[in-house]
Amino acid sequence: MLRETGMAGAGIKEIVARSEAPIGSLYHYFPGGKTQLVTESLRIHAAKLPRLMEQFFDGKKTAAAALRALFDTAADGFERGGANKGCALGAVTLDLTVSDTAIRAVCRQAFDDWVATIAARLPLLDDRSRHSFAVLVVAALEGAFILARAAQSGQPFRDAGEWLAATVSANDRRRVRAGRGRKPRRRL
Amino acid sequence: MLRETGMAGAGIKEIVARSEAPIGSLYHYFPGGKTQLVTESLRIHAAKLPRLMEQFFDGKKTAAAALRALFDTAADGFERGGANKGCALGAVTLDLTVSDTAIRAVCRQAFDDWVATIAARLPLLDDRSRHSFAVLVVAALEGAFILARAAQSGQPFRDAGEWLAATVSANDRRRVRAGRGRKPRRRL
Repeated sequence: MLRETGMAGAGIKEIVARSEAPIGSLYHYFPGGKTQLVTESLRIHAAKLPRLMEQFFDGKKTAAAALRALFDTAADGFERGGANKGCALGAVTLDLTVSDTAIRAVCRQAFDDWVATIAARLPLLDDRSRHSFAVLVVAALEGAFILARAAQSGQPFRDAGEWLAATVSANDRRRVRAGRGRKPRRRL
Repeated sequence: MLRETGMAGAGIKEIVARSEAPIGSLYHYFPGGKTQLVTESLRIHAAKLPRLMEQFFDGKKTAAAALRALFDTAADGFERGGANKGCALGAVTLDLTVSDTAIRAVCRQAFDDWVATIAARLPLLDDRSRHSFAVLVVAALEGAFILARAAQSGQPFRDAGEWLAATVSANDRRRVRAGRGRKPRRRL
């Protein structure tokens, strides 16, 4: 439900209806109510991301191939799933009010870990470049969910992934060191 | 309100309270209720985007400088605004249910126009490259709002903008034609 309509769209009544459990069970197991339910759901979801990233960045294919596979897989999954499911983390983050500090902390940590997992697997020259490019990758993936949902098509993932793959390939440190690449103009 | 918590968070009661107008006026001027209000708000918002893009891609600075300025301005604006406002289009899109066809059509058209406006101003080799890179730019901007809101910092915009600027510069058709650039490996 978080993937479909974000936090605001996932009402307690609807959660209870879909779970087919009595409402008493929900408050028994989740005394913190919706905040606790959302927080724990996001934590479970976020914990899967590093392992998922490792399946793409498996050390066998290039980082460019890994990025292309990541975005193509996201496109295919999005279309197969009915073109209506986004990323729970992204959808919830855009629903946060100033006072949702507990849920924001989970989102922030999830994005930080996700970025760090990708950054560690990029063949770029320095830590700063690896971090900022990983931020672009995660931002592009999150944004592609938005464009894809508006267009009801996975094509935005494919467009973004293609460019990200070409860019990481052009800035591969082996290539740059051998003088065949081009260093970015400013600190990256 | 759409920028803060998306469509689901913008309830009629709250809209009336913030507008300081009687609820009768709302239904008088917007007989279609919330759907009409959201649709018209998004249309007005979206209509500003091409002009805003032209301010950055003004034909005087390079596309790379325009992209860096666009993302740096977004970062500064985000931080000055309290680090809690996203893009209304992105927030609403992630709240759409399958049946929100009228609002989805507005979001889709807005993104299509936005992408086309940027694509027309990119110094890349062909239409397909310009379109797909513009998709990456818009996706990165939308995604940066998500990461920025989670982190309560505009830095994700700056990170993404820096790489997009470097990438468009490296693939500038004048550079590529002069043999100093590198053609993407696959159709872009």
